Amino acid sequence: MPLGERYGGDKSESRYCGIETEFDDDMPNLLSYNVHGGFDFVLATLMDPKYRPSLVDIDTSRSTALPFAGSDLVLSPSQWSSHVVGKISSWIDLDSEDEILRQDSEITLKQEIAWASHLSLQACILPTPKGSSCANYARCLNQILQNLGGMQLWLRIPMVKPEDGIEAGNPEYMREGDVDSWELWNSFRLLCEHHSQLSVAIDIWSSVPSAASVARWYGEPVRAAIINTNSFLTNAKGYPCLSKRHQRLITAFFDHSVQVVISGQPVHKVPVATSASNVDTQNEGGWRHPLKAYLDYVAFLYQKMDPLPEQERFELGYRDYLQSPLQPLMDNLEAQTYEIFEKDTVKYSQYQRAVAKALVDRVPDEDASRVTTVLMVVGAGRGPLVRASLQAAEETERKLKVYAVEKNPNAVVTLHSLVKLEGWEQTVTIISSDMRDWDAPEKADILVSELLGSFGDNELSPECLDGAQRFLKEDGISIPSSYTSFIQPVTACKLYNDIKSHKDLVHFETPYVVKLHRVARLANTQPVFTFTHPEHSDKPSNQRYKKLQFDIPEDTGATLIHGFAGYFDATLYKDVHLGIEPSTATPNMFSWFPIFFPLRAPVYVKPGTPLEVHFWRCCGSTKVWYEWSVTAPSASPLHNTNGRSYWVGL
Amino acid sequence: MPLGERYGGDKSESRYCGIETEFDDDMPNLLSYNVHGGFDFVLATLMDPKYRPSLVDIDTSRSTALPFAGSDLVLSPSQWSSHVVGKISSWIDLDSEDEILRQDSEITLKQEIAWASHLSLQACILPTPKGSSCANYARCLNQILQNLGGMQLWLRIPMVKPEDGIEAGNPEYMREGDVDSWELWNSFRLLCEHHSQLSVAIDIWSSVPSAASVARWYGEPVRAAIINTNSFLTNAKGYPCLSKRHQRLITAFFDHSVQVVISGQPVHKVPVATSASNVDTQNEGGWRHPLKAYLDYVAFLYQKMDPLPEQERFELGYRDYLQSPLQPLMDNLEAQTYEIFEKDTVKYSQYQRAVAKALVDRVPDEDASRVTTVLMVVGAGRGPLVRASLQAAEETERKLKVYAVEKNPNAVVTLHSLVKLEGWEQTVTIISSDMRDWDAPEKADILVSELLGSFGDNELSPECLDGAQRFLKEDGISIPSSYTSFIQPVTACKLYNDIKSHKDLVHFETPYVVKLHRVARLANTQPVFTFTHPEHSDKPSNQRYKKLQFDIPEDTGATLIHGFAGYFDATLYKDVHLGIEPSTATPNMFSWFPIFFPLRAPVYVKPGTPLEVHFWRCCGSTKVWYEWSVTAPSASPLHNTNGRSYWVGL
Repeated sequence: MPLGERYGGDKSESRYCGIETEFDDDMPNLLSYNVHGGFDFVLATLMDPKYRPSLVDIDTSRSTALPFAGSDLVLSPSQWSSHVVGKISSWIDLDSEDEILRQDSEITLKQEIAWASHLSLQACILPTPKGSSCANYARCLNQILQNLGGMQLWLRIPMVKPEDGIEAGNPEYMREGDVDSWELWNSFRLLCEHHSQLSVAIDIWSSVPSAASVARWYGEPVRAAIINTNSFLTNAKGYPCLSKRHQRLITAFFDHSVQVVISGQPVHKVPVATSASNVDTQNEGGWRHPLKAYLDYVAFLYQKMDPLPEQERFELGYRDYLQSPLQPLMDNLEAQTYEIFEKDTVKYSQYQRAVAKALVDRVPDEDASRVTTVLMVVGAGRGPLVRASLQAAEETERKLKVYAVEKNPNAVVTLHSLVKLEGWEQTVTIISSDMRDWDAPEKADILVSELLGSFGDNELSPECLDGAQRFLKEDGISIPSSYTSFIQPVTACKLYNDIKSHKDLVHFETPYVVKLHRVARLANTQPVFTFTHPEHSDKPSNQRYKKLQFDIPEDTGATLIHGFAGYFDATLYKDVHLGIEPSTATPNMFSWFPIFFPLRAPVYVKPGTPLEVHFWRCCGSTKVWYEWSVTAPSASPLHNTNGRSYWVGL
Repeated sequence: MPLGERYGGDKSESRYCGIETEFDDDMPNLLSYNVHGGFDFVLATLMDPKYRPSLVDIDTSRSTALPFAGSDLVLSPSQWSSHVVGKISSWIDLDSEDEILRQDSEITLKQEIAWASHLSLQACILPTPKGSSCANYARCLNQILQNLGGMQLWLRIPMVKPEDGIEAGNPEYMREGDVDSWELWNSFRLLCEHHSQLSVAIDIWSSVPSAASVARWYGEPVRAAIINTNSFLTNAKGYPCLSKRHQRLITAFFDHSVQVVISGQPVHKVPVATSASNVDTQNEGGWRHPLKAYLDYVAFLYQKMDPLPEQERFELGYRDYLQSPLQPLMDNLEAQTYEIFEKDTVKYSQYQRAVAKALVDRVPDEDASRVTTVLMVVGAGRGPLVRASLQAAEETERKLKVYAVEKNPNAVVTLHSLVKLEGWEQTVTIISSDMRDWDAPEKADILVSELLGSFGDNELSPECLDGAQRFLKEDGISIPSSYTSFIQPVTACKLYNDIKSHKDLVHFETPYVVKLHRVARLANTQPVFTFTHPEHSDKPSNQRYKKLQFDIPEDTGATLIHGFAGYFDATLYKDVHLGIEPSTATPNMFSWFPIFFPLRAPVYVKPGTPLEVHFWRCCGSTKVWYEWSVTAPSASPLHNTNGRSYWVGL
């Protein structure tokens, strides 16, 4: 029985809650007991924990079956696949010094996973690597992963990270074996090359590491969070509950589609008296699953989450989905695309505010009835900026003459009918031309454009506005007057794997527009390139080069950088801005998702080591492109040299 | 005029000596003056050093040519290409904070290299990156490298490495800017992805870093060593000479096909009196090139090098040439292959010594005339071990009965005629069979085999001898009685690039047999897998797993590991061994080159950081293969999972 449904339609995997069970060879009973008790699935040991291949007599082994928990026929295929996650024997230790144990472990692991595949289980959970080394475990698992079918393997990793040593600035203070468990996971998945069927089940202990350290996991493929009953506190009424820190963690995991599994023995004596709020969750006859109180608490956390804002709901289907950026200069947009973007009322009201301020600055109140301001909308599309400008004029009681310049002849058709419909014929002149070619009959006071991409200049706003600047008066105003791009390093396992699946260089050298979701943002953003309009310097160039150093907070621990999330912020006019840079983002605007610049090989960064990044904006005669690279902690290859993989056509 | 010819036929590039010159727009004169003076080529500045694109008036630029040193017609095409290495303007600084200088640098670099390409120069030398950052320089050069034609670019790097700080154990002691210049090169080539046309010209200063630090460069693509006249000392007679440390360095460079270039002003007052030894090198009229004494000294160093040993001479053509290991079990060897290996007299005399010792141990002198020892040569080929065994019997006056077992029917033909020719019919029985299938009529006292590959067990000696052990007496002797493989981490730019050129995964997961030459060996070898014969354990397995930690000497500095060199050492019998492990290698044996295990991505190792490596020998029902990985300083992917790229068939 799912935990509930989150208001707003987020029907994610995280609604399902599991329970970790002990070995039991009566699988039907085990399952019905726990499902009856309210859990959606069981984490069930598949093989008798006493089994060791080396103890089996070779002669008898030919006539006896392996000691699995029941045959495949004890449950229906759909019961196996929807309600059972296989738990691989926890004694397995593939990196033991003891060679017999190592060999037993390898044989058993292969037998159990073959059995789980035979049962068509959706996933198996693998025991935590013992000690700090995991190469042989990874080697064996990587062999298995090459021919696995559809099953997922969840490597069980406790969420522990020693803080003391680092806080004291003295790593030697750390006890041996007191390792950051993320490092273990990182080695494991690097050895297995980010295999898409290898993911993580996190064991949550009674203490939760720092927020920055925990946040690393949001970019990793975490499928389950296992909470032991020992990690629960007791509330005033004697019921189990979790600390604030644990609550925040679980809620964040719910947000990232992570399922919860409850583990351990009941350690709370829950009052027997049936309170009103518990009536519905209790079975007839008064029987309650011994862990029901823990399940109820988890369900309570799930249900009390804030509903998803409308915009997030609209964007659910786009989460972590890679899109190629638009090429609006080379390609004409489709009607549907205009349709969507015109609905972004927040954006156009910002434009209206900016135009209004510019009009007032340009024409004092006493001249308002006398002076007509010439405003040109360059890239008018189907007219939203024309409308915003006219509304600004009306609001400020300024006289306005508008030129609407648009290169897409299909949009020009719509513009003409709009002007007729609204009766703007006296005010608005439609120009069907590329702004870079148009020979304007007069000069403009105000140039309004919306040519910005997710990374600011990536849809060639600078080149277009340079072309249009010819017909702006010497003291004319450009709206936007400037824009800046920003980046930050991220862990983004999902995006990296999606790019890798193409098996080519081109996809690793292409920036993508993407609604970032399962991503860990590892440092604050930093500005990259700024463009200002109008540009009055004598040898103007739109080439740019920026070197950045990111200092990832030390309490994060080590990290793996899969690439850079990119954003922009634009100053439309004076204090009116517009943008998606997280710390200053304009609320409730949906026109832009962030951009993602991938790295061909993820970069491992130890705590306290700066990350040095270089971005170039390069311009050729027919195209503009970015190149990027990392030079510290160690040098990456240069990405997208000569724009070989990605460019924007002029 | 080349420096001379090394006795023994090593006609390498290093015979040619160049001179660095100042800018001169009379190129014909510049060239004839220096060639006349004894130099083979000039390092000549191509463009007027006063030129800066930003200072050129745009209007006049259209009517004037770029200020190159002469037109293409002043020298013949063959003069340009054989005697001139282009020197790119040394003021260029692509990582300057000054944007104008950066832009001027980029324009000029592109103009000069385009000009050098137009002249079909073989190489251009690029100025040393200024400061410790080089990303923009690398970005610009990487763009150029994508469309360069056949020209080589030599990045000029001084050979400097701060020692004090490291010796004192305190890196903070190092002054800023006091960087290990190898790091600069490493960043540069990682950014440019080991581009095969990007190589190094080393500037040798008056102090030479430690031997371990210098040795790193032997694995790098160093094309030229530039020695300034200031780095020369003065000998008793007033002539320039070099310190012992410099001499060793130059000789090692000569050995690695590096050319010397002399640079700077004459700073030695060489006695005018013509000594006898100088008569031949002096021109008529008594004119001597001002740097002739330096050239003479370099020629003297070249000529006094030890002649190449015969074996090295024989192996010249194999240097750094990657070969796939033999598959002697699956494939039959060709007559030519037998022919070559049978000539390895050192190897067979070691076998003879081993057999002789075994015979004496087995049969005391008093039984010598009575007891016949049964010896089986398994994998007899065309008979060299049969001969060595019979000679051992003769030498020790022991009676011997030999079975020669060979699976290759073509070799059996030769064996039969050998036995007839030598009159061995009474002593030797030839068995045309795979030793794993043969049903022997009696058991052997001694089993002799030569199934070892470069990595010991890589030609499946363990599997073959396991099969043959059935017909060895309980107390019988196997020759060899054991063997161990060894590895060490190496820098091997040339091998890495050759593997990379295949653009696939398979070549990066294949070990190669290769005569290692342009390779830097970064740590002592360590043993990997050992096999002992006969093997009496009750559950014998030929699977192996070894975890190794290499500590690269701290005074080496940072390094880049392209892979692992592999060797073996075998104990034939008691103290008689045979092998190629460098510290114990059997001299003058040529049957085995080392093996090379590549890494898919080179691993960067900072000083003082251990390198942790894992090797597995995996056995399936039809094949045996290795897997390998690195786990520290950071985890590599697992190589050759399931033997997907390389395996040896059973």
